Amino acid sequence: MSTVEERLSALGLTVPQVVPPVADYQPAVVVDKVVYVSGQLPLVGGELPAEGKVGAEVTPEQAYELAKQCGLNLIAALKTVVDLDSIVRIAKVGGFVASAPDFTGQPQVINGASEILGQAFGEAGVHARSAVGVPVLPLNTPVEVDLIAHIG
Amino acid sequence: MSTVEERLSALGLTVPQVVPPVADYQPAVVVDKVVYVSGQLPLVGGELPAEGKVGAEVTPEQAYELAKQCGLNLIAALKTVVDLDSIVRIAKVGGFVASAPDFTGQPQVINGASEILGQAFGEAGVHARSAVGVPVLPLNTPVEVDLIAHIG
Amino acid sequence: MSTVEERLSALGLTVPQVVPPVADYQPAVVVDKVVYVSGQLPLVGGELPAEGKVGAEVTPEQAYELAKQCGLNLIAALKTVVDLDSIVRIAKVGGFVASAPDFTGQPQVINGASEILGQAFGEAGVHARSAVGVPVLPLNTPVEVDLIAHIG
Repeated sequence: MSTVEERLSALGLTVPQVVPPVADYQPAVVVDKVVYVSGQLPLVGGELPAEGKVGAEVTPEQAYELAKQCGLNLIAALKTVVDLDSIVRIAKVGGFVASAPDFTGQPQVINGASEILGQAFGEAGVHARSAVGVPVLPLNTPVEVDLIAHIG
Repeated sequence: MSTVEERLSALGLTVPQVVPPVADYQPAVVVDKVVYVSGQLPLVGGELPAEGKVGAEVTPEQAYELAKQCGLNLIAALKTVVDLDSIVRIAKVGGFVASAPDFTGQPQVINGASEILGQAFGEAGVHARSAVGVPVLPLNTPVEVDLIAHIG
Repeated sequence: MSTVEERLSALGLTVPQVVPPVADYQPAVVVDKVVYVSGQLPLVGGELPAEGKVGAEVTPEQAYELAKQCGLNLIAALKTVVDLDSIVRIAKVGGFVASAPDFTGQPQVINGASEILGQAFGEAGVHARSAVGVPVLPLNTPVEVDLIAHIG
């Protein structure tokens, strides 16, 4: 078990099976020393735990939990192309939150993903980030998160 | 003619003239071995074939065709800064779909771009991707797609 | 004073204090020779000069000025992790504009950031870019801009 998985295990978490892409792309690609991970939805066993817009059908607290699941699915996608312990930096995280028109708490939602990445990768998990609101996302997911990482 | 252009030619496609940027930036930038390509609209000869939101004024099928044109324009932009055959990987594609509030088929739309890239670059065209809905895009385009590639 | 700061000084501009992240991430991360900068809001002294959507509560001209401030805040964030004069290229800029449903002038808004980067970095400031509309952004900011740069 990788150090990353041991850290998650200590929190009672496991790296899930990778989510098969919903269309014509790969979960992750590694080239030179850069890993590009596709936007991950918070699917659990192939199902979305919730659908709709944050600030409307979905509460910020629910969305934070969904972003955590995106974080776990990002780690699963990373694991398809690299040894998790070879990652020297989670460099950039991009968070998209399907938002009711007056919902401005995207950063707190995406913290769900950022915190899981910090817990899993320690100092290598400290990243730059953008978080934005969007009107609607694939499959009506409330949250989608992607990332760029570097390996050693 | 590059191998990439030969592959497109076999499909009856040609790499168009690069679309001049609509504002203060470059179509593509290469630094170290990474190529960053600006968001491409599906302009054909300077005109948008369609305008508006997918799921409203624009059908998903039309939008898929527009995303194909974005793919061709991405290849044209790549060609302004690198030899197309020097590209070892289309690493990450970012797709933005101007969406009616209940349209959740962004992945199928952006497949138009992903498939063209796969056809043009073969194994080097297999990429990571994010696709999201947005309310509105520059010039009222229904689709915008950008990418990051690596050269050898 | 770096050459970058001297150029800004000649325009009567100074690099502001970095904006503390509004959530669980860093303003910028450098890994290998790539610098990833987090999405910057146009905060001045901790305050947003304007809130709301461009094309509604905020005019395009105001938004252009706000994007300039995002540009300055991006430079401040870069300065937290690298010598500004070590930057060989501002490679990719990503601009998000909170937009009224019929506002399609995102490129002209994001030019505010692009122009500041061009003035500060000269030829190294010429970049690829994507600009998109979004319905709402963190803290109700009208504009958010991030970037990727490379150092020598």
